[in-house]
Amino acid sequence: MSLPTVSTSTRIGWIGLGVMGAPMCGHLLRQGHPVTVFTRTPSKAASVLAKGAKWVESPLAVAEASEVVFTMVSSPLDVRQVYLGEAGLLKGARSGSLLVDMTTSAPSLAREIFKAARSRGMQSIDAPVSGGDVGAREATLSIMIGGEEEAVDAIVPLLGALGRSIVRQGGPGMGQQAKLCNQIVIAGTMVGVCESLVYGYKAGLNLETMLASITTGAAACWTLTNLAPRILRRNFNPGFLVDHFLKDMGIALDEAAQMGLVLPGLALVQQLYFAVQSQGHGKSGTHALILALERLSNTEIEPR
Amino acid sequence: MSLPTVSTSTRIGWIGLGVMGAPMCGHLLRQGHPVTVFTRTPSKAASVLAKGAKWVESPLAVAEASEVVFTMVSSPLDVRQVYLGEAGLLKGARSGSLLVDMTTSAPSLAREIFKAARSRGMQSIDAPVSGGDVGAREATLSIMIGGEEEAVDAIVPLLGALGRSIVRQGGPGMGQQAKLCNQIVIAGTMVGVCESLVYGYKAGLNLETMLASITTGAAACWTLTNLAPRILRRNFNPGFLVDHFLKDMGIALDEAAQMGLVLPGLALVQQLYFAVQSQGHGKSGTHALILALERLSNTEIEPR
Repeated sequence: MSLPTVSTSTRIGWIGLGVMGAPMCGHLLRQGHPVTVFTRTPSKAASVLAKGAKWVESPLAVAEASEVVFTMVSSPLDVRQVYLGEAGLLKGARSGSLLVDMTTSAPSLAREIFKAARSRGMQSIDAPVSGGDVGAREATLSIMIGGEEEAVDAIVPLLGALGRSIVRQGGPGMGQQAKLCNQIVIAGTMVGVCESLVYGYKAGLNLETMLASITTGAAACWTLTNLAPRILRRNFNPGFLVDHFLKDMGIALDEAAQMGLVLPGLALVQQLYFAVQSQGHGKSGTHALILALERLSNTEIEPR
Repeated sequence: MSLPTVSTSTRIGWIGLGVMGAPMCGHLLRQGHPVTVFTRTPSKAASVLAKGAKWVESPLAVAEASEVVFTMVSSPLDVRQVYLGEAGLLKGARSGSLLVDMTTSAPSLAREIFKAARSRGMQSIDAPVSGGDVGAREATLSIMIGGEEEAVDAIVPLLGALGRSIVRQGGPGMGQQAKLCNQIVIAGTMVGVCESLVYGYKAGLNLETMLASITTGAAACWTLTNLAPRILRRNFNPGFLVDHFLKDMGIALDEAAQMGLVLPGLALVQQLYFAVQSQGHGKSGTHALILALERLSNTEIEPR
């Protein structure tokens, strides 16, 4: 198949304009690309329409208008619908189209979409990101890419507008696998940091002073530096949603089960996050894990 | 009680000359202090005796010869023996002596020793450290101090020769509590990093490439940067011993139980480390946790 050669006239499609997708799509608009968009909640398209994007009524219509389509939606279910559904991308895309899923989704689904796309002469790539809303706005995301080499070559110039660390992780699905590795580490740091804070509080420590001793040594981690202070201020705004983290942990544990892999730490953290969700904090940031740990011990860290 | 005013002529005692204690004691010798030492395994004293330290036959005899005594031994059992045993420090120390335990030990034991010491007109301080053997050699330790203010004031100048971050955490036992917070965070980062590596390996990722994507974002932690590469080289030399980490986790879980505090993450990590120990790796570094996770899934990460 012949892949598009990317230039600023390459016609881009973008699906999913949430807290991540909207600023990312904006970066491509700023580079001068004609951009066609669709998103489930049309009001979320306002900012990119104001910058010159064109609205259409379905993923199928986005694909018809575009050479390269990016997707940044919420869950594997949404990814499946957008790619493989009735009015999905694969129904509208022409042979030679490039489809790039930046959602954190299931590696097995990425491989399924890759095969379905290839059978129609298209290429699909998985390219999930880390770096959060700040990384999306500042174009400093870490992008983990899975896909066939020639297709990845073709889109790397576009990804350069979105992120700073752009690393090829292997064939179809391997970008997703690397992203899941990232989430597994975070699950560990979150439980360690939150248990440490509830321990220190019950022990009567001044938690700011405790953090001053431990943030620079062998316990140092992004979660301790960035999220522990928010917990002490009882600010549970996301950051990264509990609901989304649970989605990612569920994918990782499903994939692990398929590989015969036992991950007791991740499984426990998942259970604790279900407790956070059942306390009504699915839309809070991941550091709301402290709320489940506090409830387990019938305590609450009070701001000093 | 009147506390010693510290100068380079202050007579120092040092008990415990292992991988941490020997270089720390060496720093005080280099400052010109007369230093009297005892350690359970006399051969470990060779390096400090060569630098001018004087050997005596018991903690009691160290205390008789010293105004300020530091202890850096292996476990709370050893601390109890050294302070409260038949030929212990409290039998030999004079009124006004300062006793400083830098072992990671139980907060409740630190308070017990504090009370026993005070009833004899002495002061005891808990001042555990983080930073490992490198921090001990380079005098860059993080020192977490618990004790009465006047006593802490008196020894801070001496601690300046041993560490870079010297933080008062509160009254007797609170230095130990802060150190346990540090260990609880590390338990989380260790399980997250090790599960991530075994997941990534089974998924077929190139683990060096995976690490390149995840070490700088929200998954960033000291363990990922410093220990994951050692795991990939199958180098399990300590670092910090599995046996010692299990000791620390045991103390934290005992203290937590006394406080009515539930720490499911730490409890799970403790169990996994018992598995590492039962595999014969008690004297390996803490990153040998990967060996228990590999065994759970009947796999082994092969160097590429």
